[in-house]
Amino acid sequence: MKANSSPSGVNRRVLLSSLALLPVLSGASAPAIAQTQTAQGSSLDAWSDGPAKRAILDFVRATTDQASSNFVPPEERIATFDQDGTLWVEHPIYSQVMYCLDRVPAVVEKEPKLRDVEPFKTVLSGNREAIAKLSLHDLEKILVVTLTGMSVDEFNEEAGKWLTTAKDGRWKRPYTDLIYQPMLEVMQYLRSNGFRTYIVTGGGQDFVRVYSDRTYGVPPEQVVGTAGGTKFAYRKDGTPFLTKEPKLLLNDDKAGKPEGIHLMIGRRPRAAFGNSDGDREMLEYTGAGPGARLMMLVLHDDPKREYAYGPAQGLPETKVGTFSQALYDEAKKKNWTVISMKNDWKRVFAFEA
Amino acid sequence: MKANSSPSGVNRRVLLSSLALLPVLSGASAPAIAQTQTAQGSSLDAWSDGPAKRAILDFVRATTDQASSNFVPPEERIATFDQDGTLWVEHPIYSQVMYCLDRVPAVVEKEPKLRDVEPFKTVLSGNREAIAKLSLHDLEKILVVTLTGMSVDEFNEEAGKWLTTAKDGRWKRPYTDLIYQPMLEVMQYLRSNGFRTYIVTGGGQDFVRVYSDRTYGVPPEQVVGTAGGTKFAYRKDGTPFLTKEPKLLLNDDKAGKPEGIHLMIGRRPRAAFGNSDGDREMLEYTGAGPGARLMMLVLHDDPKREYAYGPAQGLPETKVGTFSQALYDEAKKKNWTVISMKNDWKRVFAFEA
Repeated sequence: MKANSSPSGVNRRVLLSSLALLPVLSGASAPAIAQTQTAQGSSLDAWSDGPAKRAILDFVRATTDQASSNFVPPEERIATFDQDGTLWVEHPIYSQVMYCLDRVPAVVEKEPKLRDVEPFKTVLSGNREAIAKLSLHDLEKILVVTLTGMSVDEFNEEAGKWLTTAKDGRWKRPYTDLIYQPMLEVMQYLRSNGFRTYIVTGGGQDFVRVYSDRTYGVPPEQVVGTAGGTKFAYRKDGTPFLTKEPKLLLNDDKAGKPEGIHLMIGRRPRAAFGNSDGDREMLEYTGAGPGARLMMLVLHDDPKREYAYGPAQGLPETKVGTFSQALYDEAKKKNWTVISMKNDWKRVFAFEA
Repeated sequence: MKANSSPSGVNRRVLLSSLALLPVLSGASAPAIAQTQTAQGSSLDAWSDGPAKRAILDFVRATTDQASSNFVPPEERIATFDQDGTLWVEHPIYSQVMYCLDRVPAVVEKEPKLRDVEPFKTVLSGNREAIAKLSLHDLEKILVVTLTGMSVDEFNEEAGKWLTTAKDGRWKRPYTDLIYQPMLEVMQYLRSNGFRTYIVTGGGQDFVRVYSDRTYGVPPEQVVGTAGGTKFAYRKDGTPFLTKEPKLLLNDDKAGKPEGIHLMIGRRPRAAFGNSDGDREMLEYTGAGPGARLMMLVLHDDPKREYAYGPAQGLPETKVGTFSQALYDEAKKKNWTVISMKNDWKRVFAFEA
């Protein structure tokens, strides 16, 4: 395990700084996930005309035109997308961390002795300030207890249920509504041109798989994420099942992203999309291959429609989805495309008018 | 790491018992891999009419007929195939182990000090009896040295080169010629009916990926195998690359097969094919889901055209690809289909008349 990460792949420094902002226990009770945001058509309507949109169009044209020297055979058309901050909102806290906090009451119900044990006691109190002060060790305990120790089927059911009811604090919508319409369009556009779109996320692979297909049109086998081990065993009646184990197999962040891509896909991507220092190595690895390549970084510079953080905003580097000045400089030097949310996106969310 | 396995996923007991039989250092110099054996058509011509062929046809009919209560939507159509002994010849020794032994001279050339060090000295001697007597610890050293420590690109190049020149001892053909024509037909038939075919092998994931596409029509991203970690780093000129590390991430054998399927695919297969006790858990896991399921085991009962080993032959359980009496009994009890190579296959290899 890398020093800075938990088994759930959540950077702990990020976690701590984010907890201060969180709208504790979203515990909503509302309607279902929007089912309408999946693959159809291939327009880039939510994009303004500009260098970012042009980079996408040029890349697809070059790689799919048989007459082009940059033509890429369909089987090699792999595009990888970071999730948090690239495909959906990550600010002020990763949705998966909200899930873990929201899961604490259910865990305590099953194991009542945890009720008066820290850090569960504090989480149950709902006291935001106290929760924000939890130690790294305490947070680790919460993540392990809420993400492992149950069967894969139970986990899928619980996470699926949460996603239909939990709502974010600002938009009062299910988290899966908070996906970026322009990025969904890029995924659809790439797919309609023979690319396979993969999510390559520091978040939990099993967690993202629960909603990736209906939310992004990305099937479970095309989700690469931070992954723990499972353990095969038999129930009393002889039925085999898998239990989620507190054992880290892949820390899919930073250098772990190209490593995870090799493990799970076995091919170098042709296009890669990210928004933070955690995506740097994935973009470098993508860019190091021959032929036409597309590397893009989403810059959160739109406090009105979403959030502003990163180099353009001069915010500290300890926030969620750190986009450091060094990464910004590397992008400029290597001709990666920095997407300005403010200027390049006509529309951020599908639910906007 | 499980007690009985090496980082390359090769069962050590099997290895030892097989080494006695091996035609040491195939080191051939011959033509190229047959490129003709990949997906086309979907007939089952190499199959005799009988219960095995009927089971395949019935399963595909039931799962693809929209009017059937057993209809399976295309995205759920996953079929998994063990490789050694199920898709190609594993007897008397796994091809990958031959690769490792054949690689020793090249490794020694790069690190001359190994020339007089055991076990490399013995391998270089070409003395079959001495090689067969190598200790487990010695074999482990050979596997680690020949499969790790180089870049992913170097490994791919070396393994690819070996596959075009090495030949097996009995048929004097490249190993990739020794794939079972009937199994290739099943893969093609399933694919032409919307199934995705995955290889789920105890062999090395990176090794199998080198030839899986041209040999079986299975692309690298659909190969799940025993997998080691890689390490992302930069060359002096700043180019990023991945190095194969001697660190086991997934021991894809026995219980490791369903665990690997969950990690890499994230869906339960609808059909699974194997030939040994190493495939038991994969077949059990496949069979434990609802709806129509197909579980098949290849029985090697054809000493004339291939080999005979397993319960029908009363051979000891220490041979390659152990097919125990217990597995045979379980198959009968659970209505898994045991494929008799002798009776169910009209033709074993594509190169046969």
